[in-house]
Amino acid sequence: MKLDYIGDWSRTHYSTDVKPEMDSEEVTLFGWVQEIRDLGGIRFVILQDREGTIQITVPRKKVGSEVLSKSDVLQKRYSIGVKGAVRKTTMTPRGVEVIPKQIGIFSTAALRLPIDITGKTPAHIDVRLDARALDLCREENAAIFKIQHTAVEALRKFLFERKFIEIHTPRIIASATEGGAALFPVEYFERKAFLAQSPQLYKEELVMSFEKVFEVGPFFRAEESHTRRHLSEFVSIDIEQAFATAEDVMQLLEQLMQFTCTVVNEKCMKELTTLKHSVEVPEVPFKRLKYDDVLQDLKSEGIEIPWGEDIPTPAFRTLGEVHPYFYFIVDWPTHSKAFYIKPHDDNPELSEGFDLMWRWIELVSGGTRIAHKDLLIRRLKEKGLNPKSFKYHLQAFDYGMPPHAGWAIGLERLTMMLTGKKNIREVTLYPRDKFRLTP
Amino acid sequence: MKLDYIGDWSRTHYSTDVKPEMDSEEVTLFGWVQEIRDLGGIRFVILQDREGTIQITVPRKKVGSEVLSKSDVLQKRYSIGVKGAVRKTTMTPRGVEVIPKQIGIFSTAALRLPIDITGKTPAHIDVRLDARALDLCREENAAIFKIQHTAVEALRKFLFERKFIEIHTPRIIASATEGGAALFPVEYFERKAFLAQSPQLYKEELVMSFEKVFEVGPFFRAEESHTRRHLSEFVSIDIEQAFATAEDVMQLLEQLMQFTCTVVNEKCMKELTTLKHSVEVPEVPFKRLKYDDVLQDLKSEGIEIPWGEDIPTPAFRTLGEVHPYFYFIVDWPTHSKAFYIKPHDDNPELSEGFDLMWRWIELVSGGTRIAHKDLLIRRLKEKGLNPKSFKYHLQAFDYGMPPHAGWAIGLERLTMMLTGKKNIREVTLYPRDKFRLTP
Repeated sequence: MKLDYIGDWSRTHYSTDVKPEMDSEEVTLFGWVQEIRDLGGIRFVILQDREGTIQITVPRKKVGSEVLSKSDVLQKRYSIGVKGAVRKTTMTPRGVEVIPKQIGIFSTAALRLPIDITGKTPAHIDVRLDARALDLCREENAAIFKIQHTAVEALRKFLFERKFIEIHTPRIIASATEGGAALFPVEYFERKAFLAQSPQLYKEELVMSFEKVFEVGPFFRAEESHTRRHLSEFVSIDIEQAFATAEDVMQLLEQLMQFTCTVVNEKCMKELTTLKHSVEVPEVPFKRLKYDDVLQDLKSEGIEIPWGEDIPTPAFRTLGEVHPYFYFIVDWPTHSKAFYIKPHDDNPELSEGFDLMWRWIELVSGGTRIAHKDLLIRRLKEKGLNPKSFKYHLQAFDYGMPPHAGWAIGLERLTMMLTGKKNIREVTLYPRDKFRLTP
Repeated sequence: MKLDYIGDWSRTHYSTDVKPEMDSEEVTLFGWVQEIRDLGGIRFVILQDREGTIQITVPRKKVGSEVLSKSDVLQKRYSIGVKGAVRKTTMTPRGVEVIPKQIGIFSTAALRLPIDITGKTPAHIDVRLDARALDLCREENAAIFKIQHTAVEALRKFLFERKFIEIHTPRIIASATEGGAALFPVEYFERKAFLAQSPQLYKEELVMSFEKVFEVGPFFRAEESHTRRHLSEFVSIDIEQAFATAEDVMQLLEQLMQFTCTVVNEKCMKELTTLKHSVEVPEVPFKRLKYDDVLQDLKSEGIEIPWGEDIPTPAFRTLGEVHPYFYFIVDWPTHSKAFYIKPHDDNPELSEGFDLMWRWIELVSGGTRIAHKDLLIRRLKEKGLNPKSFKYHLQAFDYGMPPHAGWAIGLERLTMMLTGKKNIREVTLYPRDKFRLTP
């Protein structure tokens, strides 16, 4: 088929911008054919763009022969342009239709599509992910990422207003940053390198110059995880602040969560409705549960966890029922936290590390950092790590490392909270784990 | 030395916020000791924070013994807190000093520091980069990254207002994305994977659902480059837009550059002054030079380049003297551009790809993309690439790929333009090439 060139066509409105008050106004619309219904004398073409849909009505006898022949060949997912007149009508949900004067067919599509993006015939997530580019055209999926976009825009605004400086730290690193999760090895020219699991050490070094820093970007963990909330590649929102304690950055975090939920409610009503989800704006301050209290709560629920051990997922699920919204867990055992988390001065058994929980999901992890070289070296050794491989980082502590604290939000988990999705692959554009690698 | 704990101390002002009008007001300042001058009866401590410096004046006889003993042990780069009273004075550049009532010493520093951050004794870039955390404390270096931060904030604002959606595409990919630059191999569990050199294919696929997308993030090229404007890991600002042509996104880009320069001028006067640099706000539209015209310009400068060949750096330097600011180069030979760049319909020898040049630096590269599967497959083969390894991407073209166009800005090069720095390592927090890998 001879395709049309977009040339100097330019969109005047998105589908949802067309209102009954615009009756008889000329518009130019771009989008995709979602559905075609032919009643013989009249043909209805549902045009979809990213904002929604609109009905293009083609009365055989009343349109030009070129418009008619174009509309004859249309198929689902063809990308087209329509120049025509708005007409007020009682026959469509939004009370408008467009009578085409000109139709441009820019691209065709396969006759048989792997999934139905109207969602009428649901497809298994694996099938959907194999056709992700098409899957994301489904209104519900587009809504997820508009909400994510809005949340990130909101939290950037929040941090900008508080004078945080956005940084871009390296992803290719020489050695294990935190000695935490397993790392992906990279062949860096003749050398072996790794993919960063977080900007932790860099952001700590940078508080010496910029004082308040944050970064939003992809990080990597070589964890062969089968859960519905882990990814080997994920997006982290990290902050670090000089001359601050855990309590300072916890208060910042509470306000940030409150602000983000408020903005998403204001700007994404349409998307939340599409997802049949609502976001509750939390009150601050959030509950602060001590690790010991959590063990008590769980014990009274019949779950015994020996002191000092980490809390397993089933226990978190129970905890999420006891505490159904946001809550902090503080005073974690020092040995259960990363080497850079500061122990309490008065009780070194316990740390100034915290987690922000949302129901049973760990949304944020943070704490006061160790600012003193000797203590940091001791903690490295206690963790079985070799201070020599942290030489570059440790030297920064000779330059006047100030007291500092920070946290990291997992963006995909935040998006799960904001969209009500329970499978992390639903909130990731091109999710990947050891079973699939796309494209 | 016994160090103090920050406890509930909280900063009331940055150094530069303290004004003569505040005479006798109580303030709490945080920062680092930049210099100490002792005149016997009186000691001057220059406190530096990220905004600037302020003089702390310690009159031996007039301050408490604790303040005196604290001030006795201070050394350069100790991180400290000062509670005291502002005093109006004619003895300091900004007309203020602070008389301490309390000094908190939070951390010490090494007696001998590898570089002088006042910049009085300049150090070689390699020495500076080996102590980058300290090097970035130098006012001039902090200024570079405040300007970069402001530029990225500005361009995000610009794109948000035009309804672009920010996306997060994968960095670990299964095969060469564009068959362009060499890629870094990654051991992805049992499989061999690569680091993405750009979000190109993903952002093209995503215009089908979101129509207007952008991403800011790190990408990777395994190029053993020795130039002063290449990095193996760099930050790219990518956009892609559905139902648009090269001309559409070039106009968007012109306005974006104009807006960004305007905002940087407004918000970063202090930083630009520190850098002794000025940013000229460009007029739009920018010059559009055809590739053929460029060859002519160069010929008249005595540089002969056979038609179809790429333009070498020395030639670009000459071109930058002929065209000393922003200019586009359009109508590049199709075979010199990536496989996804659309050839002109009327003359397939030439492409709808463009570069935005700033003097001799290629700042942005973009173009109209091929939206038709058959043509794309033909171009892949012409480029010696195997369509089979693009199977996942090619299938997206069965779902109704609209006409689309986009571009990619190199953030470090944009920062070079905005800060007047000529070595790309100067505008990168932790620069890395095959000779060094940090930390």
